[in-house]
Amino acid sequence: MEELGRLEDLPADYREALTRLNLVPLWPSLRSVLPPHIPTRQTRATHWPYASLKPLLLKAGELTPIEKAERRVLVLANPGHGLEKMQASAAMYLGMQLLLPGEWAPSHRHTPNAVRMIVEGEGAYTTVDGEKCPMSRGDLILTPTGLWHEHGHDGTEPVVWLDVLDLPLVYYMEASYHVNGERQQVKPGSGDRAWTRAGVAPTPVFQRSQQRYPMLRYPWADTRAALLALAEDQPALECVQVTYINPETGEDAENILGFYALMLKPSQTLRLPARSPAQVFHQIEGNAAVTVDGASQPFTLAEADTCCAPGYTAVTLHNLSSDQPAFLFMADESPLHRKLGVYEVRA
Amino acid sequence: MEELGRLEDLPADYREALTRLNLVPLWPSLRSVLPPHIPTRQTRATHWPYASLKPLLLKAGELTPIEKAERRVLVLANPGHGLEKMQASAAMYLGMQLLLPGEWAPSHRHTPNAVRMIVEGEGAYTTVDGEKCPMSRGDLILTPTGLWHEHGHDGTEPVVWLDVLDLPLVYYMEASYHVNGERQQVKPGSGDRAWTRAGVAPTPVFQRSQQRYPMLRYPWADTRAALLALAEDQPALECVQVTYINPETGEDAENILGFYALMLKPSQTLRLPARSPAQVFHQIEGNAAVTVDGASQPFTLAEADTCCAPGYTAVTLHNLSSDQPAFLFMADESPLHRKLGVYEVRA
Amino acid sequence: MEELGRLEDLPADYREALTRLNLVPLWPSLRSVLPPHIPTRQTRATHWPYASLKPLLLKAGELTPIEKAERRVLVLANPGHGLEKMQASAAMYLGMQLLLPGEWAPSHRHTPNAVRMIVEGEGAYTTVDGEKCPMSRGDLILTPTGLWHEHGHDGTEPVVWLDVLDLPLVYYMEASYHVNGERQQVKPGSGDRAWTRAGVAPTPVFQRSQQRYPMLRYPWADTRAALLALAEDQPALECVQVTYINPETGEDAENILGFYALMLKPSQTLRLPARSPAQVFHQIEGNAAVTVDGASQPFTLAEADTCCAPGYTAVTLHNLSSDQPAFLFMADESPLHRKLGVYEVRA
Amino acid sequence: MEELGRLEDLPADYREALTRLNLVPLWPSLRSVLPPHIPTRQTRATHWPYASLKPLLLKAGELTPIEKAERRVLVLANPGHGLEKMQASAAMYLGMQLLLPGEWAPSHRHTPNAVRMIVEGEGAYTTVDGEKCPMSRGDLILTPTGLWHEHGHDGTEPVVWLDVLDLPLVYYMEASYHVNGERQQVKPGSGDRAWTRAGVAPTPVFQRSQQRYPMLRYPWADTRAALLALAEDQPALECVQVTYINPETGEDAENILGFYALMLKPSQTLRLPARSPAQVFHQIEGNAAVTVDGASQPFTLAEADTCCAPGYTAVTLHNLSSDQPAFLFMADESPLHRKLGVYEVRA
Ligand SMILES: [Fe+2]
Ligand SMILES: [Fe+2]
Ligand SMILES: [Fe+2]
Ligand SMILES: [Fe+2]
Repeated sequence: MEELGRLEDLPADYREALTRLNLVPLWPSLRSVLPPHIPTRQTRATHWPYASLKPLLLKAGELTPIEKAERRVLVLANPGHGLEKMQASAAMYLGMQLLLPGEWAPSHRHTPNAVRMIVEGEGAYTTVDGEKCPMSRGDLILTPTGLWHEHGHDGTEPVVWLDVLDLPLVYYMEASYHVNGERQQVKPGSGDRAWTRAGVAPTPVFQRSQQRYPMLRYPWADTRAALLALAEDQPALECVQVTYINPETGEDAENILGFYALMLKPSQTLRLPARSPAQVFHQIEGNAAVTVDGASQPFTLAEADTCCAPGYTAVTLHNLSSDQPAFLFMADESPLHRKLGVYEVRA
Repeated sequence: MEELGRLEDLPADYREALTRLNLVPLWPSLRSVLPPHIPTRQTRATHWPYASLKPLLLKAGELTPIEKAERRVLVLANPGHGLEKMQASAAMYLGMQLLLPGEWAPSHRHTPNAVRMIVEGEGAYTTVDGEKCPMSRGDLILTPTGLWHEHGHDGTEPVVWLDVLDLPLVYYMEASYHVNGERQQVKPGSGDRAWTRAGVAPTPVFQRSQQRYPMLRYPWADTRAALLALAEDQPALECVQVTYINPETGEDAENILGFYALMLKPSQTLRLPARSPAQVFHQIEGNAAVTVDGASQPFTLAEADTCCAPGYTAVTLHNLSSDQPAFLFMADESPLHRKLGVYEVRA
Repeated sequence: MEELGRLEDLPADYREALTRLNLVPLWPSLRSVLPPHIPTRQTRATHWPYASLKPLLLKAGELTPIEKAERRVLVLANPGHGLEKMQASAAMYLGMQLLLPGEWAPSHRHTPNAVRMIVEGEGAYTTVDGEKCPMSRGDLILTPTGLWHEHGHDGTEPVVWLDVLDLPLVYYMEASYHVNGERQQVKPGSGDRAWTRAGVAPTPVFQRSQQRYPMLRYPWADTRAALLALAEDQPALECVQVTYINPETGEDAENILGFYALMLKPSQTLRLPARSPAQVFHQIEGNAAVTVDGASQPFTLAEADTCCAPGYTAVTLHNLSSDQPAFLFMADESPLHRKLGVYEVRA
Repeated sequence: MEELGRLEDLPADYREALTRLNLVPLWPSLRSVLPPHIPTRQTRATHWPYASLKPLLLKAGELTPIEKAERRVLVLANPGHGLEKMQASAAMYLGMQLLLPGEWAPSHRHTPNAVRMIVEGEGAYTTVDGEKCPMSRGDLILTPTGLWHEHGHDGTEPVVWLDVLDLPLVYYMEASYHVNGERQQVKPGSGDRAWTRAGVAPTPVFQRSQQRYPMLRYPWADTRAALLALAEDQPALECVQVTYINPETGEDAENILGFYALMLKPSQTLRLPARSPAQVFHQIEGNAAVTVDGASQPFTLAEADTCCAPGYTAVTLHNLSSDQPAFLFMADESPLHRKLGVYEVRA
């Protein structure tokens, strides 16, 4: 590959003339914006242990009342992008949110999509477009683009959840904004009882649901049971994994990011191939070692720990227990990559 | 509307000349093939009580060994079409099939799609493309177009199921044929354990299933639970109904006919509007009165009874029990009507 | 394959008991409704020469005034189905329609879909949902399900066109009916000038058309030019064929039947493989020999001639001219077979 | 809206502890990443006149041989993003590329999608996956993601074209890379003669094309004719606009950006509403005034001029000629916004 002309090879007055007209020569930057064979990635393998994060989050509860925070969140920021960018990867934002008993995070809606993976505590709930969704460890709750959502807490202990948003991408697209709203009227329906079994969809008088997001709450008890049933049905299956989908259409549950649950059998080691999207791992149950190709060392995930890996990178998971399964929640940028036509798996 | 010319208004030699050239004048038949406002329907509201049918089916078991029948079926034939046509409606075929302990219905596949709704007996199973699906009262088992299927019976009592096929339509299209096959190798997987919960799809290493028919068995225990959960979630919902769907895509479970389960609350009366497709009702649990508009009298469905109603006709269902829910299985021609652009609901 | 039990093997009283209950044993008919390997087809290769048909059609113009015919059509009936069934195949109806100068075929709409292939004469037009579509030799005009249509004639000579409808199938489905309407208001737009070039779609203020049938008229001049351009672009291409599609979605132009135009180079012989749908050939320009596998002899198509072939049957086309291309219009049941999952090509 | 806590409200040691753990408090930045009602946009209305750009581009031809540039491009950079970012908007890159007679830009492929709008000169061509596409003023040529492409020039005068790529977005996603290739074998087919007429698709032996990008060249002569036909067909239509689409599927021609052509009638003033995507205007014929809401003054576009406008912003176009139509090429981020669910039109 020939070396290309550099900026400094061009006469200074020529360069000034270009700048005056908002013009830039491409060739000095061509290799950098279109590198050979593999993209340049700022996303760096990063581990956020819950044990060290939690005290700081509780401290935030003391330092900042909910009215001064609106959403009391510590963002899990990837140092590769610069912490102030508040992004885990190009398209993913991760935040640990704390809600104290009796607190109220008021209703708003926004263009970015969010999900909440409940980390600990009982008694909190999210109301999404009028459906009151209870929050328990491992539950996944959707608050997709444009839907009103607010959080309340009737319990007695702090509640913590992991927010996963596509905020960095939507912000980059210059399409990120929010609208504040009134406290919602709660309708019947808890967001998870109308769609319960695979293969049967509610159809009063033969009518399929018109809702873009029919299912708002994915109870962990059900997802866990689905993983166990899958493993039992196909004993030879190496990778016991499910994707959170829209039960009416089979599409990914949200527009931009994909969400998954994965079960490692006792002592299992599982290699996930390099794929173009960046990905995030969060330990729901058990302990797993996560080895990101090219990273200096494996991460040891305790319960409630979170880590991320850049795109185009293979990852090896290992269940550290020899007698219990381990359960991981995952998020990645697959729907984005697929919709835009750049999704790739490298063997 | 003006009266049109009749065949007998045309000169005899002209009519003969037409016939010689395989020509027919349209106008004498125009009103009959394109009647005003509503189609002509031969499908007639018909009731097949299980109590009277069952002894004849068992008698068939004595009269005809399985080797002489291949599938030992009494067809539920609509007298409006002529019994010899063996059709419940334009597109639906219904048959009650008997399998005796130890019998074997050998492997074949065919262009028409079938489902089996198990009526009574334990211990039988259907093997579909290598997946061995156990059969219990109320289970729905798919044997879609082109998939190998065979039936066996390890139990001790006769097993009976209701076959629903789109055979009349596929036969009319001149596309109906079968191929016989060897006894299938049974693979792991019982056709109903990989897809169990709504909203989570198996995706080993992020891969969605490539199977056109991922779920082959819909256990009644799950469908029944889904109906109860739906009723509990939405107490004001009048029509507690689910559709059997492909859990990967949200499409109807099969290509041509639609399949549903419906729960009537104690003493509930439910009116289903006139829709273009013909429909079939089969009582899984309880007793219901089915009033087909224009029929001389309501049908009283006991458990395992079956009846049908023509298209463009409203039907009223009534649960005859004041303290138990009633459960109905339904089949109709909705996917066909929708795909071909003639689906219609008349208020 | 074992011989199955016959009806007459069953005791007479048993058979009577079955009949009383609207029941029929399946096994005596099993082979006939599900024959091995290939369907039973009543559709027979049939040729309707225009030269012999035309005088009878003009005679119909004398015998029956338009008011007594509403649509003055001689149906091209397949003797394999019985002429009175008025069907060319399971799903296709063909009719030659005559409109005399000054006549008027009043507005109606119906569930079956129609197209008109203009055969001869100038000055007639069809108004479809308010768009006035001029009719010239070779033009294809859609009158899809549910759209108002009426025909008028401002010229001086008789106009003849070939109607192709899915009436037999829709009638079989018990879904065929019509509604009469008032004379339509004519809107601007001639049904063929908004969509003209491949790859560019009208989008006022970035809005795609919401019409289910955006293009109602396919001028022969354009289709012919497309065939010539295709042949020129790909000189090695053996089969120069186009499909009439919805230019907004790429779907077949109508719901149930498919429509095509095909060019045979001078002296070309082209073999079309056996496919599951029945098909129809109509000569627009030139002369072709059509050899239907299994038929007693080839048909020699003169201009305006029409013939049909059953499904699962290979057909060989041969251009009888050594210096001019020949152009054929074709119709088949492909969309129906594909949507219902029974489409098949046999090598 | 309550004022939220600031970063400096937090104790310094707390902030340091957060930083050490790659954590960032959200609330001090919440309003900035999710502003109320409308996104923050760095994209600024910018005008790149061709008259001033062209001499600098020709100068680049003298300063930098093609071997040192690979692609000799001056990037039209939006000052709102910082010139070094080389982006016209969040997702759009614009470049003016010069190819001199006899030069050769070697074959490569890359993840970002490109189109070329030819600005001036005859005799150049782009070979895309083996199809040699001639380049003339106003032609649009696709080089979509993953397709090999190279440029040659058999003419005698410099050729200039406008490149539009989604490079900024794909780069942001950390998915941008390229692969160099061998000189391509040229196949028959010039990328624009197989699909020529709307509503008819090439289907040799009934087979639709399997190519993801069937049409690679959209000749200006055809697009211009389509605009004129549309205006003639619907004289009352205010906005005479077409979208470049995939003629097989009706989808946008490429995955991420949308491409359009628009005709202004003599003296016409046309207001385009505020929509979420940023957009680009390039004058093919005539002269138009482009008024971007909120910009200090209108841009007067001469032929070959280019300008851009941020998202969520209305734009008014005015044809400065009183007797000739004006023709504009447009690009925007609509497919991206639609696929990701954030597309919005504000009345
Ligand atoms: Fe929010
Ligand atoms: Fe069968
Ligand atoms: Fe009609
Ligand atoms: Fe390139």
